[in-house]
Amino acid sequence: MRVLKVIELVGTSPNSWEEATKNAVDKAAETLRGIVGGDVVGQNVVVKDGGITEYRVDVKVAFLVEEGGVG
Amino acid sequence: MRVLKVIELVGTSPNSWEEATKNAVDKAAETLRGIVGGDVVGQNVVVKDGGITEYRVDVKVAFLVEEGGVG
Amino acid sequence: MRVLKVIELVGTSPNSWEEATKNAVDKAAETLRGIVGGDVVGQNVVVKDGGITEYRVDVKVAFLVEEGGVG
Amino acid sequence: MRVLKVIELVGTSPNSWEEATKNAVDKAAETLRGIVGGDVVGQNVVVKDGGITEYRVDVKVAFLVEEGGVG
Amino acid sequence: MRVLKVIELVGTSPNSWEEATKNAVDKAAETLRGIVGGDVVGQNVVVKDGGITEYRVDVKVAFLVEEGGVG
Amino acid sequence: MRVLKVIELVGTSPNSWEEATKNAVDKAAETLRGIVGGDVVGQNVVVKDGGITEYRVDVKVAFLVEEGGVG
Amino acid sequence: MRVLKVIELVGTSPNSWEEATKNAVDKAAETLRGIVGGDVVGQNVVVKDGGITEYRVDVKVAFLVEEGGVG
Amino acid sequence: MRVLKVIELVGTSPNSWEEATKNAVDKAAETLRGIVGGDVVGQNVVVKDGGITEYRVDVKVAFLVEEGGVG
Amino acid sequence: MRVLKVIELVGTSPNSWEEATKNAVDKAAETLRGIVGGDVVGQNVVVKDGGITEYRVDVKVAFLVEEGGVG
Amino acid sequence: MRVLKVIELVGTSPNSWEEATKNAVDKAAETLRGIVGGDVVGQNVVVKDGGITEYRVDVKVAFLVEEGGVG
Amino acid sequence: MRVLKVIELVGTSPNSWEEATKNAVDKAAETLRGIVGGDVVGQNVVVKDGGITEYRVDVKVAFLVEEGGVG
Amino acid sequence: MRVLKVIELVGTSPNSWEEATKNAVDKAAETLRGIVGGDVVGQNVVVKDGGITEYRVDVKVAFLVEEGGVG
Repeated sequence: MRVLKVIELVGTSPNSWEEATKNAVDKAAETLRGIVGGDVVGQNVVVKDGGITEYRVDVKVAFLVEEGGVG
Repeated sequence: MRVLKVIELVGTSPNSWEEATKNAVDKAAETLRGIVGGDVVGQNVVVKDGGITEYRVDVKVAFLVEEGGVG
Repeated sequence: MRVLKVIELVGTSPNSWEEATKNAVDKAAETLRGIVGGDVVGQNVVVKDGGITEYRVDVKVAFLVEEGGVG
Repeated sequence: MRVLKVIELVGTSPNSWEEATKNAVDKAAETLRGIVGGDVVGQNVVVKDGGITEYRVDVKVAFLVEEGGVG
Repeated sequence: MRVLKVIELVGTSPNSWEEATKNAVDKAAETLRGIVGGDVVGQNVVVKDGGITEYRVDVKVAFLVEEGGVG
Repeated sequence: MRVLKVIELVGTSPNSWEEATKNAVDKAAETLRGIVGGDVVGQNVVVKDGGITEYRVDVKVAFLVEEGGVG
Repeated sequence: MRVLKVIELVGTSPNSWEEATKNAVDKAAETLRGIVGGDVVGQNVVVKDGGITEYRVDVKVAFLVEEGGVG
Repeated sequence: MRVLKVIELVGTSPNSWEEATKNAVDKAAETLRGIVGGDVVGQNVVVKDGGITEYRVDVKVAFLVEEGGVG
Repeated sequence: MRVLKVIELVGTSPNSWEEATKNAVDKAAETLRGIVGGDVVGQNVVVKDGGITEYRVDVKVAFLVEEGGVG
Repeated sequence: MRVLKVIELVGTSPNSWEEATKNAVDKAAETLRGIVGGDVVGQNVVVKDGGITEYRVDVKVAFLVEEGGVG
Repeated sequence: MRVLKVIELVGTSPNSWEEATKNAVDKAAETLRGIVGGDVVGQNVVVKDGGITEYRVDVKVAFLVEEGGVG
Repeated sequence: MRVLKVIELVGTSPNSWEEATKNAVDKAAETLRGIVGGDVVGQNVVVKDGGITEYRVDVKVAFLVEEGGVG
């Protein structure tokens, strides 16, 4: 039976939450195969000197557990 | 007295959650009149081969109930 | 086996949340049979010129699905 | 762009929540095409004379919106 | 000891939730110093004549309380 | 761009939650212009000697931020 | 040290949620001393033949634990 | 006016959450009359030596308060 | 099959939430055997004349139901 | 009728969440009279070089609105 | 001092949520020792051609952290 | 772009939730670099023979993902 594992990442971007999510998924894809999707569970911004410097997203990334087990 | 109905849709877009929401509202507006707004209740992404292929949004769309009733 | 469908309505009243709920149920009962109850999931007020003009209630109305199906 | 609609049903069964969910999905499938899944948002039991007579499940059923619109 | 205050704002934009958040932060920065960030707690859209006219974001903005107290 | 501020008040009344909400909005309207609505986020009662002496409501009141800033 | 106990009751009334809450508190006060308050955690209506027959409230009632212990 | 009391139990079973719920309801029915239903508010499993030994369910059981009061 | 009951208490202490929780558990242990644990579901403070006079904790205490039933 | 206002603060301390809460209440009491209590809505820690440097608490502080209005 | 780690898995089964949970725990037990339990945080079904093909469960699995550390 | 990973740990202590959190962070810091903070998502106590033997905290620990990927 198929089993998936879900990990929580925080992605960041100076431009948008879409790009922040893409950055988190890209980072995950460097070492994980079988990613099927991501679920946004939080969104925030970092502010410095009165201006937004970073869009941040908390994203739960799900991927298929391969032969080697859940890690 | 005014009564509104609220339906839940999932909009999708290859580009952004804003466009995904617009697609859901556009589809609703094809057959519903009197839409007043939409409330985002979930956001996620579909991933294939390590890349995001789809931004998805769960949106609750509210519209005025017309003479014909809640349906 | 018995199946119920749950729809979300927003009822309004100038006087109370009870009346707002009654208005939502009354509107639903114009076209739906077999309503068994309603669950309040939100309450708010509309304010104009510093005074409340409308009590609003988000109510999930449940009713028995008849022969014709859910859709 | 693909749009899905999500409806909330309550399924019932004298035996299990799995069967209650199956009953809700079966009823939905009588009149809806393109159902992709269901998300359980509540589970309860009805008790009579000290014994469980019914397992009930609140399930949000998602399906593809066809040409005709969201209904 | 450092104390922060958190206020809730609703930002609006015709284009995106990022811009709506920026508008809320910009407005806050007109009169507040020491803003450190914002946490998104709600997102919705206003719809008129079947089209989205406004993206709205509920954002909790946190800033350092200065000598003068919490206000 | 329009920005709103949201403040949380607790209104009280010996009679009803509607009146408690009205009392909170009335108090807010003494010093704030541009109130657009209130969202109920909690309801409770105070009991003394076995009887209810006070209906209380937690209400989030939203108003337009004027020229002077978020305060 | 003072300890309170919290019990959950469902009050009912044909007229309003205030009266339903009063009925629950009155019933509790028949056998409990030292009730300090009640917190509303749910509100719903029972519907028969298309009309509301009962307003129901889920209320958590708190009272001081006396010498005899938590029961 | 009818008043119900709601108590929280944890039922256990080596086989299923349905049986765990039945065990909790059966135990409640030994000393309580007028049980009307149960609402599942949590589900978990106990694991020993890599295998599930117990299915557990948190269930809120509601029953009519009889003449004697809420206890 | 083992069944547990869960009751909600509010413990208080002038010093800490740990002590408030201990006070609630101690009070429960005066009349209940078989307590297995407590789950914190709320924390607050009482303030008088600008200073904290009481730390309060809402704690759900679980214990094994003995032969005599759920009470 | 009595009206309270609720503001959200973040208190910090190198030692404990109790002290962090005390610091937030103390800061509030510098400029506000009539504080009645605080409700903890979040707790976290800041970590530097593998060690906790700060306990932080999000606390909603409630106080009586005086003659001058809600601010 | 004992420390546990909690990971989130999604188990699947064509038959039941109990079996889906068992499959997730079995997969975890292939590579992890010291599993103490699992907490269900979501349940859903996959539907194809109008029929349920898969019961899915989101389960948080807790296990003792061994000498080697959490990561 | 900076990416963080968030893992969930359960820390334990015979004395306080602060110490339990410290124990979880210390254990994490044995094998992880770049920890920035921890967010408390649950607090409970273990009780034996009527007394608290362990304070437990569920804490989400966030750390910077290094070159090697999310693991």
